[in-house]
Amino acid sequence: MSKTIITNGVFLTLDETQPVIEKGSMVIENNQITYIGDAPPLPLEQYDANIDGSNKLYMPGLVNTHNHAAMSLLRGFGDDLALQVWLQEKMWPMEARFSAEDVRWGSLLSILEMVKGGTTTFVDMYDHMNEVARAVEESGIRACLTRGVIGLCPPDVQDAKLAEARQFAQDWHGKANGRITTMMSPHAPYTCPPDYIEKFVQAAHDLQLPIHTHMSETAREVQDNVDQYGARPVAHLAKLGVFSRPALVAHAVHLTDEEIDVLAQYDVRVSHNPGSNLKLASGVARVPELLRKGIKVSLGTDGPASNNNLDMFEEMRLAALIHKGVTGDPVAVPAEAALRMGTLDGARSIWLDDVGALKSGMKADFIALDIDQAHFYPKTNYISHAIYSASANDVADVWIDGRLIVDNGECLTLDQEKILFESQRCFERLVGQL
Amino acid sequence: MSKTIITNGVFLTLDETQPVIEKGSMVIENNQITYIGDAPPLPLEQYDANIDGSNKLYMPGLVNTHNHAAMSLLRGFGDDLALQVWLQEKMWPMEARFSAEDVRWGSLLSILEMVKGGTTTFVDMYDHMNEVARAVEESGIRACLTRGVIGLCPPDVQDAKLAEARQFAQDWHGKANGRITTMMSPHAPYTCPPDYIEKFVQAAHDLQLPIHTHMSETAREVQDNVDQYGARPVAHLAKLGVFSRPALVAHAVHLTDEEIDVLAQYDVRVSHNPGSNLKLASGVARVPELLRKGIKVSLGTDGPASNNNLDMFEEMRLAALIHKGVTGDPVAVPAEAALRMGTLDGARSIWLDDVGALKSGMKADFIALDIDQAHFYPKTNYISHAIYSASANDVADVWIDGRLIVDNGECLTLDQEKILFESQRCFERLVGQL
Repeated sequence: MSKTIITNGVFLTLDETQPVIEKGSMVIENNQITYIGDAPPLPLEQYDANIDGSNKLYMPGLVNTHNHAAMSLLRGFGDDLALQVWLQEKMWPMEARFSAEDVRWGSLLSILEMVKGGTTTFVDMYDHMNEVARAVEESGIRACLTRGVIGLCPPDVQDAKLAEARQFAQDWHGKANGRITTMMSPHAPYTCPPDYIEKFVQAAHDLQLPIHTHMSETAREVQDNVDQYGARPVAHLAKLGVFSRPALVAHAVHLTDEEIDVLAQYDVRVSHNPGSNLKLASGVARVPELLRKGIKVSLGTDGPASNNNLDMFEEMRLAALIHKGVTGDPVAVPAEAALRMGTLDGARSIWLDDVGALKSGMKADFIALDIDQAHFYPKTNYISHAIYSASANDVADVWIDGRLIVDNGECLTLDQEKILFESQRCFERLVGQL
Repeated sequence: MSKTIITNGVFLTLDETQPVIEKGSMVIENNQITYIGDAPPLPLEQYDANIDGSNKLYMPGLVNTHNHAAMSLLRGFGDDLALQVWLQEKMWPMEARFSAEDVRWGSLLSILEMVKGGTTTFVDMYDHMNEVARAVEESGIRACLTRGVIGLCPPDVQDAKLAEARQFAQDWHGKANGRITTMMSPHAPYTCPPDYIEKFVQAAHDLQLPIHTHMSETAREVQDNVDQYGARPVAHLAKLGVFSRPALVAHAVHLTDEEIDVLAQYDVRVSHNPGSNLKLASGVARVPELLRKGIKVSLGTDGPASNNNLDMFEEMRLAALIHKGVTGDPVAVPAEAALRMGTLDGARSIWLDDVGALKSGMKADFIALDIDQAHFYPKTNYISHAIYSASANDVADVWIDGRLIVDNGECLTLDQEKILFESQRCFERLVGQL
């Protein structure tokens, strides 16, 4: 049993008993944190490794609760367009050409960016999910994966897709030393007929898995749902039984007070995607109200093509900033709340109870920021610095499941040069086919 | 006469005839760009230095048009508060204790962060401005400096402050090889009585200098102006003659249609500070309308205590994102417009006609981003990547006035270790005195 101790670090613990430890120590044994506190519990010579944490800010790894990682291949391909135009004219025609190989390299490109930027767990909803799972396995990252199914197709194709989604969820749940969990995902109420959504609900019950879906991202989509099904998306999904399973919905921008109450009642988790919602002009989610109602709100980047990066520090900062500016309330989402959304509540939103805080008994998923830089001076308030001043590039070291994945900015598990080369090659082939 | 050529680079020129050069060359002679184009104009051996620009994205240096640099000493000291509370209870009591030495180290801390992050020109409005000017001189950055005067004081103190502001503006205009220009600055309509503002207008006329001031940052301030002076800030300042001089106003969040017309009519330049306006819950400026009326809109970070960093890539991205999300128009501020606001229109907003574009005859103020990173792949659209994917930490090299100031992430002109140490020492002394 290998024992590592980190000393002299600043720790943002996400543990209410001692949220900030200014000059602390943390012990990692195998894939767990077994101690965190002010002083080393044992003499330093009794550890297998002793890491000097001076000038580092340690915090839980970031949890990105909504992504379509392989869409990194389309980063910058079609900006400044409305959601439906962007999807129908730019994304879907290119994505229709995605092979398993494209998904492999696009996912690896995103995972490389995520781990280097401090994301230690991500949710992915896409196609060719075996490739995504293999990329997760190789890279050492933690992930909650799900085949996102668009059901606008003949019944036999629908059935095949559902069977594939079921198979994937069964095959990979608990794999990669438990780093992979799975969900069932009808893509959205506007891309899946009601009876098809009900089949996903049944499958989720059968497999005892949660459901993940897009919901109420744009005003138009909400109106279309009313026009087509006579109900807004929340009532529609509730009626179809989606919330009878543990559920994570992405976006939830356009909600009424009553809908917020329904989400709270069913303990539905919301993945807030501020960057993507702004970029696609979808609007600003009612996050302060969601938080007031006790709903678990986490943060997602959405796919890299609508963001256009996977910097979770940026999402935490946007979450802290935009709701202040839009509501006029300077404490609408304080720095502490944004930090929690990006870490502990992210993990809880995907039912990981032992991830998202630096605390004895938690999984050793944590990151270290290099704080010996001008934008982290003076040393006034480390939570403020992490939320209002930091960016992905400040991340020096990343540990996931007790393993060092990024060391002083270098990813130890992935071949960066090859991934950049192959992702460029994939994009050029895809564009050439258009 | 030294001649340097950069080859094989990607160039964002901000020149409409060829906005992006994919594999280009640029020649710098002394402090000027003398050539930019697809191929080197002369055989490479005829240059004194030949820089390989492969895997670099070159663009004009960023222009930060509103800052109080020394407030970096208060970064993280009082977040998540309303503007007036934050100013009156946190900032002003600490700032009242600022000595010339504090301003020196706070300014150097900010300049270090700015140059490393790609800002080559900044506007600074503060006190102890001789220290700021000396820090500009030492560091090699370009700046437009102004003593910001709060006039809520007895007449003799008012007179002394005005005289000091005049003297500073005269002493430093055109200094540091022309890198320093100056302005006259009554701090704001709510901190300067009308007759005092008129004295600044007269001084600006006497010295033939522009005027810089805060204006219409919060709704409360606008209402107070109406209550106290019977007019909203734009009419108030117009009446006092402020717009009879070339003028740059910071914030301009709360404007009516008529006020926008008045600003357009007087060619008043607006420094949009999206990060600060969101953080202090001041609101969202009507930038799309300002742009439609042809008003020159540039970007400012505001002081580091209300941001809390000086990353101009973040301000460009916020400018591109928030107006889409808030107006529901996905092309409200396209990437190209945000890029222009952060570079060329920033320079024009402070009357620098030979800064802000990569073009023959322009000053050699430019930066290089390391684009051999995951978040810049695939290579689809470089303007998109610069606005939606980049951050300050991606900046590798910075040239200002033809001089290499930052080389592969290291600032060649400033002593980082000393600046970090001294700024921490200053903060601790200031807090100890509270």
